[in-house]
Amino acid sequence: MALDPKRTVAELKELRELTGDDSGAQRVAWTDTWQRAREWLQGLVASTGAEETFDAAGNQWFTLRGESEHAVLVGGHLDSVPNGGWLDGCLNVIAGAEVLRRIAGEGTPPVTVRLVNWADEEGARFGRSLFGSSAAAGSMVDQDELRGLKDAEGRSLPDAIGAYGVDLDSALHARSELDSAAAYLELHIEQGPVLESLDLPLGVVLGTFGVERHRITWRGQAAHAGSTPMDKRRDALAGAAKLALEIRDVAGRTGGGAVCTSGGVVCKPGIVTSVVETAEQLLDQRHLDAANLAAMLADAKTASERFAEEESIDVEWERIWSIDPILFDDTLLGFCEEAIEEVAGTAHRLPSGPLHDAAEISRAGVPTAMLFVQSLRGLSHTKLEDTKEEHLELATAALDRLASKTIAWVAAGGGR
Amino acid sequence: MALDPKRTVAELKELRELTGDDSGAQRVAWTDTWQRAREWLQGLVASTGAEETFDAAGNQWFTLRGESEHAVLVGGHLDSVPNGGWLDGCLNVIAGAEVLRRIAGEGTPPVTVRLVNWADEEGARFGRSLFGSSAAAGSMVDQDELRGLKDAEGRSLPDAIGAYGVDLDSALHARSELDSAAAYLELHIEQGPVLESLDLPLGVVLGTFGVERHRITWRGQAAHAGSTPMDKRRDALAGAAKLALEIRDVAGRTGGGAVCTSGGVVCKPGIVTSVVETAEQLLDQRHLDAANLAAMLADAKTASERFAEEESIDVEWERIWSIDPILFDDTLLGFCEEAIEEVAGTAHRLPSGPLHDAAEISRAGVPTAMLFVQSLRGLSHTKLEDTKEEHLELATAALDRLASKTIAWVAAGGGR
Repeated sequence: MALDPKRTVAELKELRELTGDDSGAQRVAWTDTWQRAREWLQGLVASTGAEETFDAAGNQWFTLRGESEHAVLVGGHLDSVPNGGWLDGCLNVIAGAEVLRRIAGEGTPPVTVRLVNWADEEGARFGRSLFGSSAAAGSMVDQDELRGLKDAEGRSLPDAIGAYGVDLDSALHARSELDSAAAYLELHIEQGPVLESLDLPLGVVLGTFGVERHRITWRGQAAHAGSTPMDKRRDALAGAAKLALEIRDVAGRTGGGAVCTSGGVVCKPGIVTSVVETAEQLLDQRHLDAANLAAMLADAKTASERFAEEESIDVEWERIWSIDPILFDDTLLGFCEEAIEEVAGTAHRLPSGPLHDAAEISRAGVPTAMLFVQSLRGLSHTKLEDTKEEHLELATAALDRLASKTIAWVAAGGGR
Repeated sequence: MALDPKRTVAELKELRELTGDDSGAQRVAWTDTWQRAREWLQGLVASTGAEETFDAAGNQWFTLRGESEHAVLVGGHLDSVPNGGWLDGCLNVIAGAEVLRRIAGEGTPPVTVRLVNWADEEGARFGRSLFGSSAAAGSMVDQDELRGLKDAEGRSLPDAIGAYGVDLDSALHARSELDSAAAYLELHIEQGPVLESLDLPLGVVLGTFGVERHRITWRGQAAHAGSTPMDKRRDALAGAAKLALEIRDVAGRTGGGAVCTSGGVVCKPGIVTSVVETAEQLLDQRHLDAANLAAMLADAKTASERFAEEESIDVEWERIWSIDPILFDDTLLGFCEEAIEEVAGTAHRLPSGPLHDAAEISRAGVPTAMLFVQSLRGLSHTKLEDTKEEHLELATAALDRLASKTIAWVAAGGGR
């Protein structure tokens, strides 16, 4: 039973019909539609004889026992954002199912192979991403906060996950699933424009960016737009405007693929007849190198203090969230590069801006690799998300080759 | 019965007690508290024998008949914003009541003198300023729009004003109140920092600024903050940020007291993980000279187009509202300057940034003058609004002298 990448494309379309509508994919975690997708996945791999289990965090596992208990994990997530795309998350799982079928068709593998569908990667409903993989990685430490989260309709997270047999207090028991994990592999769409701009179908992911996320509050003085001369103003928006422009230079000075984004400014009182008293600005900075990330943050802070002085306003920084860069496993990166070169000729190494389940698993100490397939126009989290079918087929073939190389490596004593 | 400016300060405090709370003044138009203030005002001038009437727009008039029907009007507004200051609006009315008592105490004046309390100057509840004065001026042309306005609790404007005997269709009948008006006088707090910075108590108001108010929409492309390299972004916030800074130079290039304000920017999707796709920016530009105002608008538009090109984004301008500059009457400005010099030594001429009822009455062709009294720290529309008591007394004395000069002028055939 040979690998059939065209079948993967057909199955992606089948899932789109089953769980999408005119607005896009609707497989939001902890909903009926998501459950329908999970049941459909079971049908996809039924022929392999892999055992289906659900762990304490709601992750769905299919375990194909091998000659050794050491396991190579292939994973992704079936859940989507509301009105999402047809590929984000489910490509990994459906291509993984094809790889599992190919391996099962060749008899008992030398090591155990497990396909995992992580629960609630997107966090679309409760605002908490990477739910299932962080529980499995042991990095979920915010149970008390999660207990208080509610969706837009007022339903609590504990109530919603309880309907799927998941309990917050015992979710961390999912950690035991990684006890036998020797390596973790994940394929994902790029969700960015880099591979398309290089005209390459596939890329080796070096790791995930470290992220520094801050809320910056500028405080000036509300004043009447008509009666306050220009030289007597303390305009909070001026600080936010200067920083929104400066961060482009901050990223440029740092280099190495640095990105800085000001995703929004909220002005108060925010009316046409008043100078802005308070401007709350969001800032997201990312880099693959921890020292560069720290320097980039310091650069932006120094600039903000200069702007506050220039404008006679105050500035205050509050960290919303941060994560260190996570670098994937060198050996597996090499396998990934070989696999891509074998199926597509040229591989490109690039960092991942978005976080992925792979980052959680890597943080837990499991040697990890990711490969990216080109995204058209860099779009995702929208029904406009797309990838050429021939590239989806190449991606499935590359994942299969990567799996073979990794299985051989683990069988020979490699991996954790 | 001599003028008693100290009594004006005492009555301002009495009204504050009667209609304010810990958060400030609560005399929002068309409410019980506002009605209480109107009844209190009636008591203030009862001794003068002036006749109290309410016109079709809810304006409250006290008419002291003189030897001639030609009338000198002294006006202001008792209504406040919620959590407002103790002076904005009511100073004009209470000082005017003191002037009316002084005149009545001297017997029948040579011309008729009328004190008017304009209804709903602030527009705090329904977002429509200058309700009563625009009806009287005949410049209320938005009845159909007013009919659809609702307050925060869902009550319609017609319903709220109906409770005070005012009907939108007949409100314009208030125009007849100006038939006999020969001149209009108004005293107001400056609501800006100019007089305080010059260390002067009183100023002559040249007129009210013309205003150009626009909503500027910048359209770029939403893109993932992590996966989109800096050079592949089309960031709508960058356009808004550049313009928020540029308008200071636009005002500086125009000169002549020009002011430009960006009161807010609303970003969409407005999340920390996305480049801003759409930024809606508010812009308010004011000048006392119509040609300068038009040039200043053109300058900002040209700059915005340059920014759109630089950032590969789109920009669109939509006019929210505009009004021409309104210049007050030259003769009355001269009287006003004399009156201030007599009570305070030095007068300063300055434009008014905010609009006032006086602008509506001037637009209707009634010779008009305004005087400003210093505002501490330029604050208004807050309970922190304040003016030194000695300045309030000087202001009352100056209004009285201005009224005397104007009455003599009208009696001699001046005014309309």
